[in-house]
Formats: sequence, structure tokens, C-alpha cells
Amino acid sequence: MASAAVEFARSHHTRFLEELKTLIRIPSVSTLPEHREDVQRAAEWLAKELKRIGMEHVEVIATEGHPLVYADWLRAEGRPTCLCYGHYDVQPPDPLEEWTTPPFEPTERNGNLYARGAVDDKGQMYMHVKALEALFAAHSGKLPLNVRVILEGEEEVGGEQIAAFIREHPERLKADFALVSDTEMFAPELPTLCVGLRGMIYTEIEVRGAKTDLHSGMYGGAAPNPFVALAQIIAGLKDSDGRVLIPGFYDAVKAPGADELRAWKTLPFDEEHYRQTEVGSPELTGEPGYSVIERTWARPTLDVHGMPGGFTGAGAKTVIPAKALAKVSMRLVPEMTPQQTFALYKAYVEKIAPRGVTVEVRLIHQGDAIVVGTENPYIRTATEALREVWGKDTVFIRSGGSIPIVGDFERHLKIPTVMMGFGLPDDNLHAPNEKFHLANFYRGIESIIVFFERLGESR
Amino acid sequence: MASAAVEFARSHHTRFLEELKTLIRIPSVSTLPEHREDVQRAAEWLAKELKRIGMEHVEVIATEGHPLVYADWLRAEGRPTCLCYGHYDVQPPDPLEEWTTPPFEPTERNGNLYARGAVDDKGQMYMHVKALEALFAAHSGKLPLNVRVILEGEEEVGGEQIAAFIREHPERLKADFALVSDTEMFAPELPTLCVGLRGMIYTEIEVRGAKTDLHSGMYGGAAPNPFVALAQIIAGLKDSDGRVLIPGFYDAVKAPGADELRAWKTLPFDEEHYRQTEVGSPELTGEPGYSVIERTWARPTLDVHGMPGGFTGAGAKTVIPAKALAKVSMRLVPEMTPQQTFALYKAYVEKIAPRGVTVEVRLIHQGDAIVVGTENPYIRTATEALREVWGKDTVFIRSGGSIPIVGDFERHLKIPTVMMGFGLPDDNLHAPNEKFHLANFYRGIESIIVFFERLGESR
Repeated sequence: MASAAVEFARSHHTRFLEELKTLIRIPSVSTLPEHREDVQRAAEWLAKELKRIGMEHVEVIATEGHPLVYADWLRAEGRPTCLCYGHYDVQPPDPLEEWTTPPFEPTERNGNLYARGAVDDKGQMYMHVKALEALFAAHSGKLPLNVRVILEGEEEVGGEQIAAFIREHPERLKADFALVSDTEMFAPELPTLCVGLRGMIYTEIEVRGAKTDLHSGMYGGAAPNPFVALAQIIAGLKDSDGRVLIPGFYDAVKAPGADELRAWKTLPFDEEHYRQTEVGSPELTGEPGYSVIERTWARPTLDVHGMPGGFTGAGAKTVIPAKALAKVSMRLVPEMTPQQTFALYKAYVEKIAPRGVTVEVRLIHQGDAIVVGTENPYIRTATEALREVWGKDTVFIRSGGSIPIVGDFERHLKIPTVMMGFGLPDDNLHAPNEKFHLANFYRGIESIIVFFERLGESR
Repeated sequence: MASAAVEFARSHHTRFLEELKTLIRIPSVSTLPEHREDVQRAAEWLAKELKRIGMEHVEVIATEGHPLVYADWLRAEGRPTCLCYGHYDVQPPDPLEEWTTPPFEPTERNGNLYARGAVDDKGQMYMHVKALEALFAAHSGKLPLNVRVILEGEEEVGGEQIAAFIREHPERLKADFALVSDTEMFAPELPTLCVGLRGMIYTEIEVRGAKTDLHSGMYGGAAPNPFVALAQIIAGLKDSDGRVLIPGFYDAVKAPGADELRAWKTLPFDEEHYRQTEVGSPELTGEPGYSVIERTWARPTLDVHGMPGGFTGAGAKTVIPAKALAKVSMRLVPEMTPQQTFALYKAYVEKIAPRGVTVEVRLIHQGDAIVVGTENPYIRTATEALREVWGKDTVFIRSGGSIPIVGDFERHLKIPTVMMGFGLPDDNLHAPNEKFHLANFYRGIESIIVFFERLGESR
């Protein structure tokens, strides 16, 4: 027997989806200055919607960067308070030519909605809003528990503004736990809670050789080449197996518990199928001696995202560039800290830099790794809600991705986070043809409704 | 006593310079498709000017790429025939922000003309045209020798069209020697002939890992990173001293003669001064055991010009790119061949490519290395002309740069080339703030006039 709120949600699929499409059409790419006004527009659109459904104290909070959106409803005396978090900014859509349909024109195909932000995180964040709307509608304008909503517009660029807000105004976000829907299900139809996240540091290495660009004919053989130097540095950071070579890099790593490792072995996961369907490379690479699940959830890694500088156009330009840049990030696991890892990395890069060039290593942003215990009462209630909606036991996973906000909630608000995500492994996050499986959008809304109703019953 | 032609040139400095500025203002960047019409416009402007001064059979020759400009005057019976070569295309001007004045608005400062193409090669090519004009004017509409002019618009992108034209129509360029002004003087006030050029191969390495861009949180530790793989390949190509590690790379290298090496030691060259004023890097790098002059003139090298792909914008994008590219060139010396060097390089890159990725190595263009003997009669006459105009003995140098056309002249037309250039070492070729020392523009014109008049006297 579905609750009245669940019935309300079921009878409004079409409208909910059209609203989501409207939100997605706003190209709120936080990293690109030319989309600044779009990010603002997305914030205002969400504030208006939160007000409409019945939330109170709705506010678009201006910051030094993109705005925050706040709302609350705190009239469920004696009930727990949930802090609903989401982000309305998205990654850049490039490379544009690889999208089947335009990134900001959401398109339905094969039961999926294709668009930048479909699942990360507009679609998932909007599940919260629609669950709250259904609960207000079914409970005579009331919610079964207290709710604060905080939405940010800088998750994809480091989340500095919300981090500052949490540090400076923890009382405004006071809650018993946080709910974040920005993770994925382990497999289709398999209800999943994420109880661990990797942290990260995102850095830039800048190498400078000559004082100006030089002709490679005239100066080749005498002038240092910053791209060659940078390649030598990067080759010194990671071996061809994927083992990071920074001295001390692995020292603080805490291995997962034996029970966690055992549970992971029971998950439906086939490395060869994963290689073929998700990665598509000739081989998988990574630290020897660990499974793919361990390597992506419980081991730190290092990746290079791009190497700007020099000549990147079509054709030929025979230049020895004056400088070269590399965008390098590392994923961290408990108990590594961003500070210590960056210090080890920086010192090592400076040490292995070849002669003839100068090197600068910059920290762009950072986030802590996190683990939430499965015995936590909110995790337990979420598990029950998922069993009711999906008819299956929840699997507990970690995620290789970083959600720095979860670390901030733990550190500054002293609350645990329930990471209840409904993305799928092939959703193409941060890549062309990002999608959200529509059945998951609808069942995600129901899951949150049931979760909140159960929390409202318990004292 | 200056000849009438030299006097004519001296009395027309202002007009000659204004004409050159007009030509430079046409942004004939051959590598950028958006400048296609500008390249065409530069060709037509030059054809018109060649006709005006008295050249015959002037023709803008359409090709599959940018046009060639041809002209001749072949009425000096019994006199030698000179093939005057130059190029009217230029390098891209980026990075634009480093130019003191706009690249296509030629500006006089400190006795120099600053602009893209000022010295490479519009200014130097135009010296030929103005020398011919002065000779026509002083010799009653005649020239003291036979002249063919061939100008190309693709020198900066490999010169495929002129190479094809020479191969297919060698009779149209029949001459006794070629004159090329696209090199530099060893030092200010030091008349210089270049008698050796490095060859080159310009290549791209493309590395592909996953089938699509992936999120580095989700897949970091399992998906191969093409930039890391490319860095490992590049680090395997060259050691930190600058020695190229491709097996067999140096095998065919023919060392310069003992007399040539002795002469180079007498040239006014201070490595520390060169490092400070021209390169500006903390140290010079390059093959151990060789002087800078040897390394840049007589030793092969390898450079990386850029590594396109992935995320290159400001801020952070946590992507594992599906592919990464490197633009890599090698400078060759006698007796290395482009074919053999590319084969060694390609095989080695494929061999050292790490697992998990696929690699494609592409040859973009190539040119042979060349050496012209100093005992050649045209070199001797050029030396006499330079002594008359500059009052000093000529120094014989090589150049680290490549002028593939000189190899084509030798191979297909069976003629030697006199490389009489008037650039200076700090002219910023291919870089921001390219310049041409105006005194050299004027004295270059005089040098060519005297060279041609002396060739006209001899039988």
C-alpha cells in the first residue's frame, strides 16, 4: 500500500519531468565565467520552486562566488532534522561534437533523459524537491520531519563558498543528519547506499623554460623544452602499472575492514564486462595486487586532466613554448589528508624537476575522504525505506568520487551523511551524453518520501 | 662609389618601407583556415608589385593549398639565371597578449620594425623585390642577369604545394642557383652566409585510453590515463640532459669537418650571454659533450610543441580524457633522412607505449638536411658582394632551422642555394614581438643589388 505522498508523486511524473527539463536547459556551468548569469538564474529558479511547494525562509544567498539557495521547514516538533544538500551547477559540456543531442536540450531516449546535469546533480537534487512537494501535498501542508535545504552552485569547481558558509554559520544548518543524492547505484535495480568517499586534491604544475616562445629550429638543442620537462615529471609521478611514486604517498592509507572487503567480493561485478562496457580501453590499469573495486574505492590514485600551453591548433607550429601546464589531481582515502598529501607531492615534484626549468606547484582545491558507519540509525532507516520501495536489500558501497561537502558536514556540523544516490554506472558523468535513467528519477523520489515518512514515525 | 641601382635604393627607403608595411598588414597565417583569403590576398598583392617593377610572365598559380607566385625576366643572354625564393605566409601570432604592439600593425621602435612576418619572411623576401626594382630602374628596364621569382604561401605549414610544383615542373624553375633570404646573420654587422640547414620531421602522437571521457573519481585507479601514458612515452624519448633515446637516432649523423668546427670556435659567441639574452632559462640544456653551436647546427634534436586534448580551461574539471595528443618534431642533420628517422621513432614509440592505451604516430611534414660547399662560385661571388657592402669578411654558418625548399632545389633542380639572410639572433622568429632591424632591410637590398651586378659582369 503506497502512502498518499507516494501516490501524489506517481500521478505527477509528467509535470515533474518537464520541470526538471526546464532547470537543465539553464546552462549553469560553474567553471566558465561566461555562464555566471546562468548559474544565478538556476539558483533563482530553484528558490522560487522551493517557495511554491511550501518551504519557508527561502533565500538566495549571495557569496563571493556563485550563490547558495537556502530553505527550511522546521515545524515538526520532536522529529529529527534532515539537511538536504544538492548542487545545481554542472560540468562544462565539451567536447561538444561527441554529444548525440545538444547537452542543454534534455532529450528522452530509451527510458533515459540525456543532458549535462541530468544525473549530476540537477536530476538527483530535484528528487529531493519533488519528494518534499509530495509530502507537503499529502500531509496537509506539513512535513513528517524537519527539513533544511542547502543547494550550492560551485560543486564542480571546489565548493569554496558553501564550505565557508558552513564554517561561518554552522547554526544555520543545524541538523541531525544530511541527505545527499549525488552518488550512484552499484547496478540497475540494486538499491545502494554509499558509506565512503575518496577525498581529493586538484593541482596545477607550471613549468617555465625560456623567457619567451622560441623557434625550435634555431634553439632546439639548447633551450629547455617545458613540455618535455613536464612529461618527465609526470612520468616520475606514476609508473606504467598505475602505482603512484611519490615517497610516502601510501603511508597513511587505512585499509578497509575485512567484513567490508568480504561484502565487496559478493557484489555483482565482472572486471572484463566493466572494461568493455564502461571503460572501453584495451586493458584496465591500476595498482597491482588490488581488485578494480578496491582500486577505485579504497586506494588513492593520481590523474592528469590536461596539459595546456604551447601550440594546440591544427597543423604545425615549430615553437619551443616558454611554459607548459599540467592539471593533476589525486584521489585520497582514509586516513590521508589533503594537506599532507599535497606537501609530499609538491616536494617530490620540485625534487624530480629536470634542470633548465623552474617549477611551480599550486593547490586548486581539496576535499577530505570520508567513511560513514553502516550501524548509523539514519543509514538503518534509509535501508528499510529502500527495501520497501525496491523490494531488495541495500548494498553498501564506497565511491571513488569526492564529495567534499560530506567532510565539511562531519567536521563543522558534526553530523553523518546518508548518501542515497540513484545514478547508474554508465551515466557518463562529466562526459558527453550524460544521462539519468528516468525510472530511477521516479523511484528515487519515492525512496526519499518513504525514508522521510519513516523518520517521522520514529521518536 | 655606389652603383646607380644602389643609389636608387638609398633614395627610396621611405617608400620601400611603407610598401613592406602594407604587405605585413595582410595577416597571411597559413596554418589557420580563417586566414585563407588573407594568404590569397598577399599573393595577389605581390604579383601586382612584381609586374609593376618590370618582371614578366607574372602569375598567381592556384594549387590545392595556398597559391604560388611566379615571375621571370630572362633576357640577359649568356648570363646566369637566379631563382629568387621567398615565402609570404607567416606563423600564427599567438600568444597575442605578449605583443607590445599588435602583430599585424607594423610598428617602428628603436630602429626595428615590429610585426609578425617582419623578418620571417615578408621583410627578407621583399628585399629581393626591391633589389630587382632598383636594378630595373638603374639599367634602363633590364636586369644584369636572368631572374626567376617563386614565392610560396605554405612555408610555415610544410610547403607541400611548392614541393609538388618543383617535382612536377622543374623546367619552369630552371636556374643556375637559388637565392634564399630566410636565415640570419650571426651577429649584428657580421655579414653571414648560411651553408647548412637542419632537416626536420614534424609528427603527432595520439594516445587513446577509454572509449569516452570518464570521471576521475569513479574511474581513477582503473581507467588508463592517456596524458600519463603520453608523458611516459615522451619521457622515454629524451633524457633530462637532452639526449634523444630513440635507438639508432644518431647512427647516420655525419660530423662537421675539422675546419668547419675550428671556424665555429672563432665566432663571437658567449654561451652565458646567449642564455641570458636570448633564451632566458635558468640553464641551457642539450646533449652533453657538444657546444651550443654544435648542438643547434650540427646535432639532431627532439622537441614537443604542445599537448592538446583533455581539459585546458581555467579552473578544475575532473576528467580522465579519452585521448591525448602530442605535437613532436625532430631536427635532422646530414646524413639522417626523414624517412629512416620517422621509422625509428615510430617503432620506438609503439614499443615503449604503456599498456592499456593504443597509440598512433603520424608524420605531418618533413624536410631534408642540407650542406652547401663554401667553394661554390655563387657563394664566392656572394661573399665578395657582402664584403663590398658591409666592409667585412663573411662568416659561414649553419642554421638549426629547416628550409625544406633548399633540399628540393638540390634534389629536383640540381642547383645550389645561396642563403643570404639579414635577420638577427634576437628577432623573435615564431614568437611574440618579431622584428626586423631596418638597417639590415636596407643593406640587405644593397647586398643583393651588388651580388646581382657582379654576377652580371662575370661570364
